[in-house]
Parts: sequence; C-alpha cells; structure tokens
Amino acid sequence: MCQLLGMNANTPTDVMFSFTGLATRADEHKDGFGIGFFEDKGVRLFVDWRSARQSPVAELVKTWPIRSHHVIAHIRKATQGRVALENTHPFVRELWGRYWVFAHNGNLVDFHPRLHGAFRPVGDTDSERAFCWLMQELAKSHACVPPVDELTRTLAELMPQLHRHGTFNMLLSNGQALWAHNSTKLHWLVRQHPFGEARLRDDEVSVNFSEHTTPADRVAIIATEPLTDHEPWTAFAPGELRVFVDGMPR
Amino acid sequence: MCQLLGMNANTPTDVMFSFTGLATRADEHKDGFGIGFFEDKGVRLFVDWRSARQSPVAELVKTWPIRSHHVIAHIRKATQGRVALENTHPFVRELWGRYWVFAHNGNLVDFHPRLHGAFRPVGDTDSERAFCWLMQELAKSHACVPPVDELTRTLAELMPQLHRHGTFNMLLSNGQALWAHNSTKLHWLVRQHPFGEARLRDDEVSVNFSEHTTPADRVAIIATEPLTDHEPWTAFAPGELRVFVDGMPR
Repeated sequence: MCQLLGMNANTPTDVMFSFTGLATRADEHKDGFGIGFFEDKGVRLFVDWRSARQSPVAELVKTWPIRSHHVIAHIRKATQGRVALENTHPFVRELWGRYWVFAHNGNLVDFHPRLHGAFRPVGDTDSERAFCWLMQELAKSHACVPPVDELTRTLAELMPQLHRHGTFNMLLSNGQALWAHNSTKLHWLVRQHPFGEARLRDDEVSVNFSEHTTPADRVAIIATEPLTDHEPWTAFAPGELRVFVDGMPR
Repeated sequence: MCQLLGMNANTPTDVMFSFTGLATRADEHKDGFGIGFFEDKGVRLFVDWRSARQSPVAELVKTWPIRSHHVIAHIRKATQGRVALENTHPFVRELWGRYWVFAHNGNLVDFHPRLHGAFRPVGDTDSERAFCWLMQELAKSHACVPPVDELTRTLAELMPQLHRHGTFNMLLSNGQALWAHNSTKLHWLVRQHPFGEARLRDDEVSVNFSEHTTPADRVAIIATEPLTDHEPWTAFAPGELRVFVDGMPR
C-alpha cells in the first residue's frame, strides 16, 4: 500500500513541511515517489523511481518552496506494476484543455475496463488503468469542463464502480478543485486563523504556521495517515468522496 | 525565437554538457525553459517559467546525471502566449499508450486548426496548438503505434501543413525515436568512437568524451545553433525532416 498527500489552499502555499513528513515514511514505501503542483492551469510534475529518502528530486522539493493551490503527492510501495518511471504516481492527462493529476493508494483486483482509445495507460498499474477509465467516463459525461459541483456528482457516480474492485483511496485535481475518495484510510485537516504550531509525528520537525501566514490564509491537507500530533485530523468514512476548494471541504 | 536541444543515444546518456551550453543562451531566452527525459516509456519533465540561468530546477538538471535515450529541451523567448508554466515547452500528451514530448522554435501565424476534442491546448501558444493538431492527425492516420519508418512518412506529410503557416523548427519523441524538422535553423551532430574533446562555444567548459564513453556508444545531438567548436555540425536543409534512432539519423 502506498501513502497519499494532498493540499488545497486559498492562496499559493508551499508543502515542504507536509512533504517532509510524508518522505519520512519512504523507508517502507521505497518504490518511487511523485508530486504534482498546479500553477494556474500549468503543472509541475516531479517523479522518481527512487525512494523519496534518496532522490535528488525529493531533496529539491523539500528545500525549494514551490507555492501552489493544489498539490498531489504519493510515495509508492509497489503492488501491481514493476518499479519504473512509467508506473510512478501521480499520473497526468489532459481533458477539455485542462491537466488532470491523479494518485491512488490501494489495489484493484481483476480491473480491466474497456478503454476506447482516448486515454490509454503507458505503464502497467491498476492505478493508471483506473485513471484512464475515469478520464474516459468524465469525457463521456460532459462536453467541456463543467462546474465543480457537477463534476463532483459525476465522480460520486463513478467512484463505487472502482471501489467494488478493491481498495480505492485516491486524490484527483484539475487545478480548480481537489477531490479525495476514501475506501479504507484517508484523513483531512484544515489549517486556518488562528494558526498554531505543528510537529511532525515521524520526525523532530515542527513549524509555527502563525509566522508564515496571514489571517486570510486557509489550507486543507489530506493524508493517508495524520502527519502531525495535536492537530484535529478527521478520518474519511468508507466510500466517502470530498471535494476541496479554497482550502475547505465543500 | 527560442532554442531547441535534442539528444538521441544508443545507450542511456546524460545531457549535462549540452544542456549547460544551451543554458548559457538563457539571458536572451529568459521566458522559461523545459527538458523532458525518456526512461523507457516513462518521462521525466522539468519545466519552469524562470530562466534556465536562475531556476533551481535547471541547476538540478545541470548537476544530476539523468541518463536517457531521448531528451528534448527548450529555452523560451515568448512570441505568442504569456510567460507561464502552461506555456512552457516541452509539452507532453499520451497517444496509443505512449507519451509524446514536443518542443517548437518558431512562430505560426493565423494557425487555428480544427481540434476535434481528443487533444486540446491548455495554454495559449501556437506551439501547443500545433502539437495538439499533430497528435490528432497521427491518431487519425494509425490505429495503434506504427513502426518508426511509417510514422516518419506520416509526419513528412503533416510537416508542410504546419510549415506553411510560418517558422516550424521542432523536436518530437515518443521514446522510440526522435524526429527533428527544420524550417529555418537546426543543426545536428553524431558523436561516436573515436571520441574526442569538445568545448562549449559560449562557455569555458570542455569535456573529453573518451573518458566517459565506451567504443560502442553513439549519440546524436540536435540544436538550433551548434553548441561546440571544432565538431562537424551539419545544418538541416529548409523543410527537412530527420528521424534519429540509436544515436544515428536514419
């Protein structure tokens, strides 16, 4: 099983603290890592088949404050598909003139959907197959990019069809919103004014967010396991889909 | 106008020396840079709207030997489209279960092709429009990924349709071959045994390739302007399309 990290903020925010927390778990999840940052409609995607403990790319991400509204990160423990760049999450595709970034934690059994051609997997993971199928079904459902709430309703219809094949915890963003679906394990948290101090659960690192924020800032963090102590993480319910916009669940 | 750099090799080869040469030209081409590396079917894409002189990502690429068979790099001087991540080359799309990486140097005037939907631009450059149109037309011409020579024939039919709208120097790769088309300025070079020393034209850097290679290694470099002195660079003819496989033009 892998670990997911998502961030959705109302102002461009860096994710160095949370990514550092995620990367401490890379000893167990050593089969690659990836992180995608939206900057407006553009995407920066960093992937490596090396562990986030050893990758020079991970070092860059930990030390360079890349500010973004929507971030999706993943550290991999391979279940299906060899350790290779093309099997490393997040995956990116374009639909309706927008990039879509997707990462999955789980294992879909006997999942071989009919893919008609517009979206085909490059690697051989169940995750990329699921993403291609999602993109295909979204493309069938809407002619162009619909409002966020409409997309959420379509995704809510599609999620159970993936979930019934196995574990399907996922993060998805198109640069307008971030969707999170839980089947077994996913937590979320909103940080907002008054900001306090947080300490990483797996590391000696702490940060006082009040020194780095304005009272208007708001950021939602979504993670497989809570990353910090003494913060009010909420567990997703099984089968729950949530959409985050401007640093808040909607 | 921008500057292009391509590499095609018969063994995984790093491109630090040539990329350093390209980056010295980033004072004039300061509106972003990007570089895409194939590792088998996977792609590492690094893009930044900062100049390759200032970007921490460019620093990583100059100092970390990423070995690849196919590399496409670009430094941008904006003609159409604002300076933004979504307008930064190279662009990537998936077709037939393979990633395609594309970069363009030139300017297409009044180029607004009919795009039927499977490939739509995210940004607002003529270059990304041209790439989407190319992908669309390739998808129409073949049902799945055809042999390299067949793809070359299809591309040879498509290039003049872009070329007649303006300057269209481009690099394209799908991880099996690298295609280069020239309309105004493009040069190529093959380095092979016996390897010698090369010195960057715009910098004090030189390298003795014989210290870093085996006699079986072969690498083709394609660049807008020759990057080195005392090496036999060949200019492309206007309208010429060349495909490079295993470090050789074919």
